[in-house]
Amino acid sequence: MTLKANRQAATQSLSKKRLRLWLRLLKSTRRVEDELRRRLRAEFASTLPRFDVMSALSRAPDGMKMKEISKRLQVSNGNITGIVDKLNEEGLVLRVTPPHDRRSQIIRLTTKGHQEFARNAEAHSQWIDEIFGRLDEDDVDGMIRRLDHLTEKLEAQGKGD
Amino acid sequence: MTLKANRQAATQSLSKKRLRLWLRLLKSTRRVEDELRRRLRAEFASTLPRFDVMSALSRAPDGMKMKEISKRLQVSNGNITGIVDKLNEEGLVLRVTPPHDRRSQIIRLTTKGHQEFARNAEAHSQWIDEIFGRLDEDDVDGMIRRLDHLTEKLEAQGKGD
Repeated sequence: MTLKANRQAATQSLSKKRLRLWLRLLKSTRRVEDELRRRLRAEFASTLPRFDVMSALSRAPDGMKMKEISKRLQVSNGNITGIVDKLNEEGLVLRVTPPHDRRSQIIRLTTKGHQEFARNAEAHSQWIDEIFGRLDEDDVDGMIRRLDHLTEKLEAQGKGD
Repeated sequence: MTLKANRQAATQSLSKKRLRLWLRLLKSTRRVEDELRRRLRAEFASTLPRFDVMSALSRAPDGMKMKEISKRLQVSNGNITGIVDKLNEEGLVLRVTPPHDRRSQIIRLTTKGHQEFARNAEAHSQWIDEIFGRLDEDDVDGMIRRLDHLTEKLEAQGKGD
């Protein structure tokens, strides 16, 4: 093969590898999510969207509006209204209507909600530690660095909108 | 610090890093998906679930049942029935009822559907190549290897069910 043909072949090969990496990223995150869902259901009768909602609320001591909650979710959107209703029924969140804005409800975790989330979060961290247990510190550092490198450009584009 | 305390601190630190990696994986894949959605909408008036459905069908020359399609999807489930209806209306898929099983419909791409998907897939590959452009061959190989390492254990567990 000529030098030019060699380089073209190498470029195509890298292009195919990048596609393969993307498909692996999708598949891996999905597998980990499935495992987390399984354990949340088994240990806490909970779901990933529910954990995600409580996680967002746990970081907002003054509560959040419904719209803000859905912006903060990290996994695929669950039925947020249904989730908040159930948390409310279980005494884990309060719906507060501020005096100056009767149309905006603020959702906040109760003390019981904070405690319940703390238990879920502790377990969740241990599960992630176990699931990612085969990756040592170099693996983990290397992957974080490359993922940050990947998203830097996208983040910059996003800000330009 | 004692040697034991040092080791405990190092273990906790790695545990925290693994959690951070998981959150990065979620955030990165979501950002890339958002970018793909944006481009699919702009270039092809299409969506990621629709692309995903066509992708699954493109690999099944004899067609697939609706249930099989949803199993194969790689991104979050769109409204598959709605997607297939629209593809049908646009002449991109056919709904075929086999003579021996009138209750099972098979969905297959038409020639026009295969051509449309080929155009989408070509563009999609170029976008992935561009989005992942900052990662060189070593980066990509390294990440694929680590993701495979990560999911090996989960896949083994899955087969044990």
